[in-house]
Amino acid sequence: MRVAVLGTGMVGQAVAGRFDELGHDVHVGTRDPAATMSRTEPDQLGNPPFPAWRERHPGVRLDTYADAAAVAELVVNATPGTVTLEVLEAAGAEHLDGKVLIDISNPLVFTPDGPPTLFVENTDSLGERIQRAYPGARVVKALNTVNAELMAHPATLAGGDHSIFVCGDDATAKAQVTEVLTSFGHTDVIDLGGIISARGVEMYLPVWLRLMAALGTARFNVRVIR
Amino acid sequence: MRVAVLGTGMVGQAVAGRFDELGHDVHVGTRDPAATMSRTEPDQLGNPPFPAWRERHPGVRLDTYADAAAVAELVVNATPGTVTLEVLEAAGAEHLDGKVLIDISNPLVFTPDGPPTLFVENTDSLGERIQRAYPGARVVKALNTVNAELMAHPATLAGGDHSIFVCGDDATAKAQVTEVLTSFGHTDVIDLGGIISARGVEMYLPVWLRLMAALGTARFNVRVIR
Repeated sequence: MRVAVLGTGMVGQAVAGRFDELGHDVHVGTRDPAATMSRTEPDQLGNPPFPAWRERHPGVRLDTYADAAAVAELVVNATPGTVTLEVLEAAGAEHLDGKVLIDISNPLVFTPDGPPTLFVENTDSLGERIQRAYPGARVVKALNTVNAELMAHPATLAGGDHSIFVCGDDATAKAQVTEVLTSFGHTDVIDLGGIISARGVEMYLPVWLRLMAALGTARFNVRVIR
Repeated sequence: MRVAVLGTGMVGQAVAGRFDELGHDVHVGTRDPAATMSRTEPDQLGNPPFPAWRERHPGVRLDTYADAAAVAELVVNATPGTVTLEVLEAAGAEHLDGKVLIDISNPLVFTPDGPPTLFVENTDSLGERIQRAYPGARVVKALNTVNAELMAHPATLAGGDHSIFVCGDDATAKAQVTEVLTSFGHTDVIDLGGIISARGVEMYLPVWLRLMAALGTARFNVRVIR
C-alpha cells in the first residue's frame, strides 16, 4: 500500500519505519524536504535527526506534505496537535479527499509551570476538528494513547497483550485501520464508536502523562480487562 | 475502624457494604435520614431504595452528613460530583479536619444531547477543589475509575488483576487508603502523585464512558501493563 506519513519526528519515524519494514511504499511528508535533510542535531527530546533515521530506511521517500499526500492511498497525521491543522492545510484537502486519514495527534500544550494541558477538550476534540475541516477525509483516531515505540512495535511489551482504540465515523475506514494495527502487532483493537469518541482518547492523555511520571517510563499501556 | 460514607446511592451502598463486610463500624451519611429511610421506589438508575439495602446491613448506622462525619476516623465522599461540595459543607469542615477523605466523585454533567461532560477539567479538578476548600482534610482521590461493584469487590473481575489509582498530597493518607483498597481486593494500587493528578483520573471518565458503550457493560477495568 502507498502510505503518506506526515511528520518527521519521533512518531512519524516510528510509524513510517514500521510501514517500511512491512513492505509498504512509504512517503514521509515534511514542510521543506531540503531543510529536513540538512538537520544534523538531535531534536528537543534528544532523538536523532531525520537524516540519521533515513539512512536505515533508504526506501522511504521524503516529500512535501502535499506531494506525499497526493500519491498516498492512506495518510497518517503524525504531527504535534498544535500544528496539525496547519499541516493538513499544506497537504491539501484535494489530496485527503476520500482517503483514510489516521490521526495520531494529541492536542497537548506544554507549559513551563504545571502539567501539560489540552487546547481542546470536553465538548470537542482535535479528531472532530480534523473531520469537520476535511469532511471528504475518512478520519480514524488511533495510536495516540501509547508512545511511539509501542505504536509501531506493540509486541515489545508483554507480547502485545494490551489494548488500542479506533474512533471514526466510517466503519470501512476503521476496519482498514484495524487491519493495519493488527499487522503492526496490536492484539486488542477496540472500536470506541464515532469520531466524537476522540474526546475520550484525547482526554486520556493527562492520566497517561501522570502514569509516565509515576512509573518512570513511557513504555507502558493499558489492557482493558472485561 | 470507624468509617463515614457520605452518600446513599449505588456507590455509597457498595463501599459502605464492603466496609461493613470487613468488620468496620460504618456510618452512612445522608441529608435527611428519615427521608432516606422512607424511600420505597428504586432510584433513577433502577437501584433498590436505601432501606432495602439497609436490611442486608443491619449493623450500618444512618445519620446526617455531619453526625456521620463527626464520629468517623475515615470519611468517604460517595456523592455525585455535582453535589459534592454542598455535601461536604453540610458534613462540616470541623468534622473533616485532620481526617483522611477518600474522594470517589466524578465531575460529570449528564445532558440529554451528547455524551456527559465534565464541569471542571484540564487546569483544575474536583479533587483539587475539595482539597482547597478543606485544607485540613487529607484528600485522597481513589476508586472513581471503576463502577461501584468493582470498587468494592474487584476480585469479581479477573481475580482482581487490574489497576486502581490514588492521588493526594499526603503520603501517609495515601498509604492508609492503599491498605483499605488492598483489603477490598485491589491488587495493583498505583500512586499517581499529588492531588493535582486528580485531573488525570477525572479526565479518564470520557474514555471510560465510551468503553462502557463499546463493550456493553460497566464491568471492566484497565490493567496498566509495564
